[in-house]
Amino acid sequence: MNADERAVRDLVALWHRATAAGEVETILALMAEDVVFLVAGQPPMRGRESFEGGLRGLLAQHRIESTGEIQEVEVSGNLAYCWTKLTVRVVPRSGGSPTSRAGSALSIFRKQSNGSWVLARDANLLTQVS
Amino acid sequence: MNADERAVRDLVALWHRATAAGEVETILALMAEDVVFLVAGQPPMRGRESFEGGLRGLLAQHRIESTGEIQEVEVSGNLAYCWTKLTVRVVPRSGGSPTSRAGSALSIFRKQSNGSWVLARDANLLTQVS
Repeated sequence: MNADERAVRDLVALWHRATAAGEVETILALMAEDVVFLVAGQPPMRGRESFEGGLRGLLAQHRIESTGEIQEVEVSGNLAYCWTKLTVRVVPRSGGSPTSRAGSALSIFRKQSNGSWVLARDANLLTQVS
Repeated sequence: MNADERAVRDLVALWHRATAAGEVETILALMAEDVVFLVAGQPPMRGRESFEGGLRGLLAQHRIESTGEIQEVEVSGNLAYCWTKLTVRVVPRSGGSPTSRAGSALSIFRKQSNGSWVLARDANLLTQVS
């Protein structure tokens, strides 16, 4: 495994840890400013700021527990993609029933001029599980 | 626009035309043998042969009309991604109501050793529209 693939895998692992810990600034540093999140049935969410608003809103009343199994990472030059099987559990801080979603995500990463990698595009195919 | 980006855009346009014409062999030549199609709520569809079976089954009794607006294509070395807004209309050949799905797709293309591009991974976020 080369250094770029390792960097993408480390980014994904850090994303899960920072999400569980509610460390919003850490997560924001892992994505491009022009990041786009694609989800079925909703308009594209464009930009780091939009993501931040949604995440802070969710974290205000919930914990997020996510786990992922990376299926593959492929890198070419300044571009990489990663296919992951994810499970995301959202747990109300006040008690109440957690909700779980599971499925694949297909993510595009971009290498920045300083050599670090960031998430650029993300297609999230998760559906509710009981 | 460089030659690789042009090739990816041409591939997408040909895909739509060949789908409308029911030209299965043409479509199969546009994807890698190890292609993976990701859809919400279903297991990953792996390999050109699986796709072929599904497509031939669908085309036996339906016409498929698809249109797409490419949002962006980015190429780096042997890898490219394309984000498209798609509408796919499936029309029963025997009459009856067509169904339409619309939404984004995020696709990964791979450049082969002969210089041509093929679809390698595809995340389809389309949902039913009325």
